Amino acid sequence: MTIEVQLLAELTLENRKRVLQRAHGSFDEILPAITQIMDNVRDRGDDALREYTARFDGVEIENILSSPSEFEEARHTAPPALIEAIEQAARNVAVFHRTHVSKENPVQVQEGVSAWRVWRATERVGIYVPGGKASYPSSVIMNVVPAQLAGCWEIAICSPPGQDGKVSPYVLLAADMLGVRQVYKLGGAQAIAAMAYGTESVPQAYKLFGAGNRYVTSAKLLAASRGLVAIDLPAGPTELLVIADETANPRYVAADMIAQAEHAADSASILLTTSRKLAEEVASQLDSQSRDLPTREWIEGSLLTYGLLAVVSSIDEAIAFSNEYAPEHLSIVTSDNAAVLERITNAGSIFLGPFSAQPAGDYATGTNHVLPTGGFGKMFGPLSLESFGRKLQVQEVTREGLSGLRQAATTLAHYEGLPAHRAAIEARFMEEEAMDGNT
Amino acid sequence: MTIEVQLLAELTLENRKRVLQRAHGSFDEILPAITQIMDNVRDRGDDALREYTARFDGVEIENILSSPSEFEEARHTAPPALIEAIEQAARNVAVFHRTHVSKENPVQVQEGVSAWRVWRATERVGIYVPGGKASYPSSVIMNVVPAQLAGCWEIAICSPPGQDGKVSPYVLLAADMLGVRQVYKLGGAQAIAAMAYGTESVPQAYKLFGAGNRYVTSAKLLAASRGLVAIDLPAGPTELLVIADETANPRYVAADMIAQAEHAADSASILLTTSRKLAEEVASQLDSQSRDLPTREWIEGSLLTYGLLAVVSSIDEAIAFSNEYAPEHLSIVTSDNAAVLERITNAGSIFLGPFSAQPAGDYATGTNHVLPTGGFGKMFGPLSLESFGRKLQVQEVTREGLSGLRQAATTLAHYEGLPAHRAAIEARFMEEEAMDGNT
Repeated sequence: MTIEVQLLAELTLENRKRVLQRAHGSFDEILPAITQIMDNVRDRGDDALREYTARFDGVEIENILSSPSEFEEARHTAPPALIEAIEQAARNVAVFHRTHVSKENPVQVQEGVSAWRVWRATERVGIYVPGGKASYPSSVIMNVVPAQLAGCWEIAICSPPGQDGKVSPYVLLAADMLGVRQVYKLGGAQAIAAMAYGTESVPQAYKLFGAGNRYVTSAKLLAASRGLVAIDLPAGPTELLVIADETANPRYVAADMIAQAEHAADSASILLTTSRKLAEEVASQLDSQSRDLPTREWIEGSLLTYGLLAVVSSIDEAIAFSNEYAPEHLSIVTSDNAAVLERITNAGSIFLGPFSAQPAGDYATGTNHVLPTGGFGKMFGPLSLESFGRKLQVQEVTREGLSGLRQAATTLAHYEGLPAHRAAIEARFMEEEAMDGNT
Repeated sequence: MTIEVQLLAELTLENRKRVLQRAHGSFDEILPAITQIMDNVRDRGDDALREYTARFDGVEIENILSSPSEFEEARHTAPPALIEAIEQAARNVAVFHRTHVSKENPVQVQEGVSAWRVWRATERVGIYVPGGKASYPSSVIMNVVPAQLAGCWEIAICSPPGQDGKVSPYVLLAADMLGVRQVYKLGGAQAIAAMAYGTESVPQAYKLFGAGNRYVTSAKLLAASRGLVAIDLPAGPTELLVIADETANPRYVAADMIAQAEHAADSASILLTTSRKLAEEVASQLDSQSRDLPTREWIEGSLLTYGLLAVVSSIDEAIAFSNEYAPEHLSIVTSDNAAVLERITNAGSIFLGPFSAQPAGDYATGTNHVLPTGGFGKMFGPLSLESFGRKLQVQEVTREGLSGLRQAATTLAHYEGLPAHRAAIEARFMEEEAMDGNT
């Protein structure tokens, strides 16, 4: 595999557009199929779910909910190293996420006018954990730990069953270790439909979380557009952009790019560097390091189609491109990482320095790995504790406080053509002023 | 107008459902029309916008952007009391909202592993301000002030033109006072399409804000489901639920309910009280206070269709119903408001005590009036400073730090079938360990 080193400034408009667009496509063509699945699950509940699972996952399932014996089996066959790894990852996610929401004190807006916000968890949440060929216990951690810290009452997980008709034992293990027993054997758009509408077996959720393939993402967007649920963020193929200067180690940079590329052939790995020497060494490392990996096919496909090794004339040029790209993962390996970070406006999760290996963030640094892709980093942030609840507004106004707002509020009400708004404020002063008149 | 006092426990299942459902309908029937407008604006830009404005607003517009002379006219004809009211309201919104986002310090997740978040504003935002017959300068304040505090670079407003082909002078005034000059003469779904896709005149936004009618809301949801933009929250007909005991003043309660009801015939005003006497006095006040109001027609329509005066056997029963209803505005007027607040899980903006008149919150208490309606309070919070940006994740790991994560991360990578993830972490130790072998 040979990836050519290019000058970013000499990228053709077409290539620039291709890189910025990445594999992030439209959902238009699959929308009719998704709509049909959603409607069918809404109308026929569990029967529809069993039919879709037979058709798409190739297994007949009796009980949609994972059974106690399936959990027990997962626990008994669990590799001890995996148990320890899940424990450590969950602990680190908790340590970081619990700092996200802090208690707010009342603000005295004017004399006699206090306003503040109170945190309330989203009561019922549904989490999608992808499956099929692979198994993602880390996705369980990244969603369940913040949901529990937030205080969500009901946490349901959907994950597609394997050929044995069971959810992956590693997913069951992680759920069990975190105390979640509502794990449903459902994948794809039908899982999203089940949690959005609720069925005989699956509880309806108020908000849906978790990454999946484009059918899952499209179903989440459809459910949200129907006003059924809120969703976390639309997630697509994964991405890494590296901003590096001559101080970076080409072996490490290449290793992170390959790790990103191995997810699937539609992943994107990009290097922007001020050093042509680094770019060329990374090109050579990409080839040599990926040669013996079992995931080589995906790595090559991804690097050759969506990858880019580009030389920039300045770090500024790299920052500008990166902000336009809004990468899911951004690695900054320069002589002054803080200065670069200061000017990053759009990205999901940022890794500073040579030892902030991007795969460490997927699992164990405590940060969340559910991140905006496909340019969505311009408007969405990473999954966080805040994603699992919201702050309700509270205000408390005294008679004197209302008196200080009276003129402004009644004037605005008047010019907005809302006389009863004005009257509701005046009602609080009528008796008082009638009495004033008496004295 | 006579509104019957009912026992909440004796509400028929059908009536209970009708009250909980309120006027919050499905968008299915208007979706084809909205889709056509979106596609047409995407494909034909300003030409399509001018055609829709002629068709739906009944005016021909040449320039879509409001002109400097239109701003000047709005400023020169502005009532001085309105200028003062806008100033005070904007100041109070700023005082409250600027407390929403605080700087986060790095968390030491493990030795050598730091993680934190950095605030970044959403660069380009689009705000919809409803218009037509009425004018809502307060909506300008509620969206623009937090956007500016957040640090948004580009703030565009769309508001439908009146018969004179201009945006309401009060909207122009509020925008001008806040320093926003990008005010476009666009209403309805075409305004949303313009900001989602961008046209020759209207810049593309990353996130769309602001309440509108159901065409506007449906267009926002469609734009979000196409992956074009993020949206604030789906807003529909406005609502007030009052939880009161015998200590409440029936005149004030009725005045707030009428104010809520005057917005439109699909607004909802509900009283839940432990005191039958209060409920009956409120019923009588609703009739007498609304009799002479010019907005009486809407008030009666709203109260008779979506209103409810219900007696509960305990405050607990009221709280349970309210949490199921998730009211946009919740007024709590009891002998122990703090105890009730503690148990409220779903609501938008909460008003404590007799002088926290709900219309004061629409304008001047500093809280935001863009709030979740139709039960969306279960998953969405009020508009806030956070709505106009997001926190990017950052992590910095030292060699020792990575060493402490090595086992957990490589184990998870192994069981998730991602060998290059494992390799990327091991790459950071290979040289070191090769050297160790040499010594």
